[in-house]
Amino acid sequence: MNAYVAEFPARDSVRRESRVETFIRQNDFDRPTLVLDIDRVADQFHALKAGLGRARIHYAVKANPQREIIERLVHLGSGFDAASRAEIELCLSLGAHPDHISFGNTVKKARDIAFAWNAGVTLFAADAEQELEKIAEHAPGADVYIRLIVDASEADWPLSRKFGVAREGAIRLMDYAVSLGLAPVGLSFHVGSQTKRAEMWTATLDQVAAVWQAARDAGHDLRLLNIGGGFPAFYGEEIQGPTSYAARVMQLIAERFGDVPEIMAEPGRGLVAEAGAIAAEVLLVSRKSDNDMHRWVYLDIGKFSGLAETMDEAIRYQFLTERDHELSGPCILAGPSCDSADVLYEKRPVDLPLGLRAGDRFIIRNCGAYTSTYASIGFNGFPPLDVVVLGD
Amino acid sequence: MNAYVAEFPARDSVRRESRVETFIRQNDFDRPTLVLDIDRVADQFHALKAGLGRARIHYAVKANPQREIIERLVHLGSGFDAASRAEIELCLSLGAHPDHISFGNTVKKARDIAFAWNAGVTLFAADAEQELEKIAEHAPGADVYIRLIVDASEADWPLSRKFGVAREGAIRLMDYAVSLGLAPVGLSFHVGSQTKRAEMWTATLDQVAAVWQAARDAGHDLRLLNIGGGFPAFYGEEIQGPTSYAARVMQLIAERFGDVPEIMAEPGRGLVAEAGAIAAEVLLVSRKSDNDMHRWVYLDIGKFSGLAETMDEAIRYQFLTERDHELSGPCILAGPSCDSADVLYEKRPVDLPLGLRAGDRFIIRNCGAYTSTYASIGFNGFPPLDVVVLGD
Repeated sequence: MNAYVAEFPARDSVRRESRVETFIRQNDFDRPTLVLDIDRVADQFHALKAGLGRARIHYAVKANPQREIIERLVHLGSGFDAASRAEIELCLSLGAHPDHISFGNTVKKARDIAFAWNAGVTLFAADAEQELEKIAEHAPGADVYIRLIVDASEADWPLSRKFGVAREGAIRLMDYAVSLGLAPVGLSFHVGSQTKRAEMWTATLDQVAAVWQAARDAGHDLRLLNIGGGFPAFYGEEIQGPTSYAARVMQLIAERFGDVPEIMAEPGRGLVAEAGAIAAEVLLVSRKSDNDMHRWVYLDIGKFSGLAETMDEAIRYQFLTERDHELSGPCILAGPSCDSADVLYEKRPVDLPLGLRAGDRFIIRNCGAYTSTYASIGFNGFPPLDVVVLGD
Repeated sequence: MNAYVAEFPARDSVRRESRVETFIRQNDFDRPTLVLDIDRVADQFHALKAGLGRARIHYAVKANPQREIIERLVHLGSGFDAASRAEIELCLSLGAHPDHISFGNTVKKARDIAFAWNAGVTLFAADAEQELEKIAEHAPGADVYIRLIVDASEADWPLSRKFGVAREGAIRLMDYAVSLGLAPVGLSFHVGSQTKRAEMWTATLDQVAAVWQAARDAGHDLRLLNIGGGFPAFYGEEIQGPTSYAARVMQLIAERFGDVPEIMAEPGRGLVAEAGAIAAEVLLVSRKSDNDMHRWVYLDIGKFSGLAETMDEAIRYQFLTERDHELSGPCILAGPSCDSADVLYEKRPVDLPLGLRAGDRFIIRNCGAYTSTYASIGFNGFPPLDVVVLGD
């Protein structure tokens, strides 16, 4: 991960103790608990929307499908990017209109496509011939967008080649979609989760614009540009504020694509991460041998109980303890399970108070995204993350 | 991973289609399902016991806490190695005697130690001073064994330095335990999960024997050697059969430790992995571009829904399809979620039939261990692994 010196002033708000952090300090928890502030989600929605302008927001439900988040976003007029049948059912059950739901997973069960189509969902992602065939059979005449592979991601959670088709295949897929009776309405891509500055989108947008133009030259009257997610959350390194970030992305798009009829964005992390914090507990602090450089700090939450994004130390969370004013030093941070892979940060140890002891409260900041549903159902007998939602 | 040419004849049984595989072929499943054969667990228990002789088996419950597995093992007289309060409660609720349960996690909540002690559990693991203090306070006078760090693992799922104390610290911890009123009765270690041959234990046993002798020389009358797990399952590379493997480990121990009063072993994977198979489904087969070397095969199960041990491609499962007689080629295997990290095998692609198509049945062999409870509660909206247990 690159240390990045901000060109933009950091937001003070993410430095101050948040409402969820105060709540955690003032309450007791008998197991690791994610506390969510739905008002904070709404604030972030408005901040992103102010920058995105006419682009529609389709919240990436997978980031956090908590019922109260979806309800509030329905109320705010958000759309939804669903990864599965269950996510579609959730959004519908909480009042979302099927027109506002896209089925954004490029890998879908045929029977789930049929379910979505029958429920009124008309927009589907695809990046392969077999996927188009499934859509044509189970959602005849549907709108599809083709997901592109892009290189040169500068994101913290890098993308593999798992999703998307290479540029030379995209137009062929559009032609194939037409031959199957589908409507290839646009393109999608993903710049990579946690892309910290809008300028980092430039190379990706250049690649996508070239394909967009080639598709139009080939006779495809594209109308939808789905710019995916990538909007960052604050994890300690400076990030650009949401409104200026989104506005700059829209400007970069205008410069390359001209007057695109429809633009949609799929923020997940950027919408909900800063609305949550986890109440955890220190279980043990130890040294392995006299000449060890680092202490080991063991928590009651780990890689298999909510902190999966510490995989390869990709996402580096920030922490609060009651001893943050005391002397600190480098510590290796690990989870509570008997699995030796359940180590959170070891290659780059974290700076923690040397006085930490078993039983101490440990707050994990800005982890409202990609935590609660990643938790295992009961690995080592530990229950999934508990969730508490703060009301209005 | 090293290709290893067996010195011992491979067991034919693991090559033939198993009872669970036959069951999967003959039934339909609407979502990924782990099918377990409890008789196969019992057979494996007897096979290991035949080699382990007087050593007691404490099944590592975390490998698979399925109720029917625990019940059968209680019936067979097995002991249990528990990682948490919930695992202790499970074993007790299914008839295990507290004397047959050890609390083997070196990182425990103080209140969980108190729970265990009050429930009659008297044997606890520790590798740090603070842990001994918690045990002394909440389980006064308990038996403790000190876990050692060992180097030079030859296991497929390598151990970090997360657990254990370095040898020079072990005797100091025993002295400290005595000063706290605890009874330091022995040592434990872990040779590393999926250690394929008994001979691979040699270097580790040499290290542990040196500490054992030094502790006795220092006046600690040790009586318990806990040899942990490491017993392998068949994942395609040859492994030594369970009885000869266990017998050879016991012989290596006798050569180094002489007449140890009590030996306990904690097989998890080695006891249950081969008793299960997962029924999965192919969702999509595609190519990313014309000049890609490999196809991509997407399944309805992935890293976040049961196959967590594919992390870093550590455990390499074997597969069965209905097209195994057809032409095959190298494929990248990926899961169904929208997470780009949900790729199972890419660095070393797997050889799969080129004719595979969406909707095809896909059987994952020998995955009765470390699958069902690793599954996330609902990442991307996908439900946890379903489990079906075949009766007597």
